[in-house]
Amino acid sequence: MFNKLCIIGVGLIGGSIAKAAREKQLCTHISAYGREQDLENLQRAKALGVIDDFSLNIAEAVKDADCIIIATPVGAMPAIFKQLKPVWNSDTLYMDAGSTKGNVIAALETLFGGVPSNFVPVHPIAGAENSGVDAAIIDLFAAKRLIYTPNPNTDINFIKLMTAFWQALGSDVVEMNVVQHDAVLAATSHLPHILAFTLVDLLGKKDEQADIFKYAAGGFKDFTRIASSDPTMWLDICMANKHELLPLIEEMCAGLGDIKKMLADNDNQRLHDKFTYARNSRQRFLDHYK
Amino acid sequence: MFNKLCIIGVGLIGGSIAKAAREKQLCTHISAYGREQDLENLQRAKALGVIDDFSLNIAEAVKDADCIIIATPVGAMPAIFKQLKPVWNSDTLYMDAGSTKGNVIAALETLFGGVPSNFVPVHPIAGAENSGVDAAIIDLFAAKRLIYTPNPNTDINFIKLMTAFWQALGSDVVEMNVVQHDAVLAATSHLPHILAFTLVDLLGKKDEQADIFKYAAGGFKDFTRIASSDPTMWLDICMANKHELLPLIEEMCAGLGDIKKMLADNDNQRLHDKFTYARNSRQRFLDHYK
Repeated sequence: MFNKLCIIGVGLIGGSIAKAAREKQLCTHISAYGREQDLENLQRAKALGVIDDFSLNIAEAVKDADCIIIATPVGAMPAIFKQLKPVWNSDTLYMDAGSTKGNVIAALETLFGGVPSNFVPVHPIAGAENSGVDAAIIDLFAAKRLIYTPNPNTDINFIKLMTAFWQALGSDVVEMNVVQHDAVLAATSHLPHILAFTLVDLLGKKDEQADIFKYAAGGFKDFTRIASSDPTMWLDICMANKHELLPLIEEMCAGLGDIKKMLADNDNQRLHDKFTYARNSRQRFLDHYK
Repeated sequence: MFNKLCIIGVGLIGGSIAKAAREKQLCTHISAYGREQDLENLQRAKALGVIDDFSLNIAEAVKDADCIIIATPVGAMPAIFKQLKPVWNSDTLYMDAGSTKGNVIAALETLFGGVPSNFVPVHPIAGAENSGVDAAIIDLFAAKRLIYTPNPNTDINFIKLMTAFWQALGSDVVEMNVVQHDAVLAATSHLPHILAFTLVDLLGKKDEQADIFKYAAGGFKDFTRIASSDPTMWLDICMANKHELLPLIEEMCAGLGDIKKMLADNDNQRLHDKFTYARNSRQRFLDHYK
């Protein structure tokens, strides 16, 4: 499919893309770009055979690449785009893999005066709480959704190429409006991360005083798994999508206020109804997920 | 160890105790009690061989039992204790398996004028989101903690018997003060359940309008697992432990308020610090858990 695939940011997502692309024989050569502080991770990626080579010079890394995937934290993307602009190749497929799309598109529009027609914003709905190339998983995208949020301007041929690439990795490729994407992901992913981080922050302080984690069980383990996610990545996502996230945090606090009132009022019936509705709703999610 | 073990409430916990006790040959006969609306579950438990027989008459079910375990939702326990009182046997080991201990002890004190010396309040720190005897798991308690909260009055011989029983099921038996138990569990278990129920309640309503669950991933699945827990059981727990839970819900809302402010103020450094502290705290939990 490609002669040279270039991965910008070889972490969990970038590394998993590289591994899967190689296994599915979607490219003959994989290069990578990273900053000086990423050197160790890049060396590790090369030693593991995840990439063929890397450069700390972005122009060198992307040279002759016919597919470039930017898999850095979303906050780093505007600077990456700026570095890519002077060496932009109109025959190359560009994709980001960010968890937010509005800010990525806005950065491109500011820099290029519009999203380049060969840039397809995508978001693979897959991940794990671990980070770095060592966390990369060959089948991370298999049977997972990939959302892309095209512009009216996006070239249909690049959309087809993007679709073929991700379908070859096993993903279910679906188109979505960028505003809807950011709203849905704020609810189903960004808000849960905020809750998990906030809870573990709160309980971590209690644990320092009273050793409470010793008595936490499997429910706590699963509930807090996402609080082990990369802080920089999640800082960027939350900042980038805060206009969607802030009202949701408020709704969540209002929901907790309702629960508090039901508890204080001994309103067993309403609390039971709420728990039952939640349980049934999760079953609806599980039915989708399976 | 016992001639006759009687399980009051053969759900996930009661059923798992029965299965494990039989496998470890800790008793020769297992009886059970339930209400008329539990008939189908009791018949199923008998058909599965989890119990040997059952009765809808509590006096009959507990007759000659040398160990009685009350594994109903905690809200049902005061009524169970009242039914047990006329047939109380001072040679029998009584235990509850409730997730809250203060209210169980208070109910006993009210009814008996003190916790009977042969009643040991215990809490196996193990569970799953499924309920009923079909959810029972033979090794649910293996390598899990069992907390017991004795009274000054509790007979040491019954404590020894209780310890031998749970250790035979593979549990790590630890003593705890009842107030500490309820505080720790409110933080590590009851609050997470409230958060999961509240989030899925909130998102369930959005899903009805906008089909958002289609785009939720593995992080959401794990985060919300405990929202599939039994509503009656959790209503009881939250009501029983609300004096611990209410201030924690307030602390959580305050924590979310801090996050909101950091987002609104673009306070990247503080938000990054918070996420990093949470991630490190969870690692401390994982180190305990392993």
